[in-house]
Amino acid sequence: MAPLEFYFDFASPYAYLAAERLEEIAARRGRETVWRPIMLGAVFKETGMGPLFHQPMRGPYGERDFLRSARLYGLPARIPEKFPYTALAVSRAFYWIDASDPKAAKRYGVAVFRRYYGDGIAPESEDEAVSLAEAVGIDGSAARAGIREPEIKARLKDETEQAIGRGVFGAPFIFVDGEPFWGADRLDQIDAWLERGGW
Amino acid sequence: MAPLEFYFDFASPYAYLAAERLEEIAARRGRETVWRPIMLGAVFKETGMGPLFHQPMRGPYGERDFLRSARLYGLPARIPEKFPYTALAVSRAFYWIDASDPKAAKRYGVAVFRRYYGDGIAPESEDEAVSLAEAVGIDGSAARAGIREPEIKARLKDETEQAIGRGVFGAPFIFVDGEPFWGADRLDQIDAWLERGGW
Repeated sequence: MAPLEFYFDFASPYAYLAAERLEEIAARRGRETVWRPIMLGAVFKETGMGPLFHQPMRGPYGERDFLRSARLYGLPARIPEKFPYTALAVSRAFYWIDASDPKAAKRYGVAVFRRYYGDGIAPESEDEAVSLAEAVGIDGSAARAGIREPEIKARLKDETEQAIGRGVFGAPFIFVDGEPFWGADRLDQIDAWLERGGW
Repeated sequence: MAPLEFYFDFASPYAYLAAERLEEIAARRGRETVWRPIMLGAVFKETGMGPLFHQPMRGPYGERDFLRSARLYGLPARIPEKFPYTALAVSRAFYWIDASDPKAAKRYGVAVFRRYYGDGIAPESEDEAVSLAEAVGIDGSAARAGIREPEIKARLKDETEQAIGRGVFGAPFIFVDGEPFWGADRLDQIDAWLERGGW
């Protein structure tokens, strides 16, 4: 069966809340996942939306809801001082790792999410992207070279364009056998969809 | 204990999905509810948002998600040809009924929601608002006079302004002992909040 396709931006708060729980659901239902970081800024240009925490009225509620939901799920969470951030280096590093070892790429992805929303530090620079790779056991200088590869840069751009073409307008956005689900709120529906084969 | 405060616009698809389920949750947890229809158009002026189904990319997904969620909850649902509609007459009728009989007002509210999202007919005119009142056993000419009362018109305006003042930016928006929850997606959290007294 096709893997569940998980589109997200590393700066998205609800993608952070969804990532590890999606893995648990997929494992319980015997399904694989593929992670596809994209640059949500490019998506927002299509929809006219902006980062949640900056929106009038929705922003203050969003912060409260994010922290409250994280407490419920038992995930460490804070509102980073810098919000959002441009997750270019870490997204490229992800695809470079993913090309040879998808499991390691997911471990890297979890570390990136936790660095930002757990520690409150935006891993925006190449140095930070590399040091997170080292923290999950990946060679730093190889990762640094990987981030700079033209093929890797093109991959992130292509994935973002493909996502827009498939109707992805926010994160997390998950396809289950072609069925689109948007939002961390939809994980329970995804679980039910996998159990019943749709409804 | 204070009742759960349920703010909504009768034209809101996710308020329709939430209304009857919220009543079930409140009943199970031994809590009362108050329903407060508001005019979301006035709210959107504050936030710059618009009706979901009209938004680029989000609109087509929203329709699919709404119908899929309704199937899951066992609620009849369709996308009305006229979307959204101005729920002025039915909201006024609601407050007029509510002033003497809150339980009857909720029955009226359910009938209004089901007329729009179940049958696909927008109850926009005074005649339609009155005939829905008659359908739940309320005297039609009294309801027609009630809709036109200056106090009732003022009530709807006041509730909408108060809602904006309390940070309500969408629907459904529910306060549980002062804690704000936005979206039909949050009903499970509301249930858990009531069970645990927060977390």
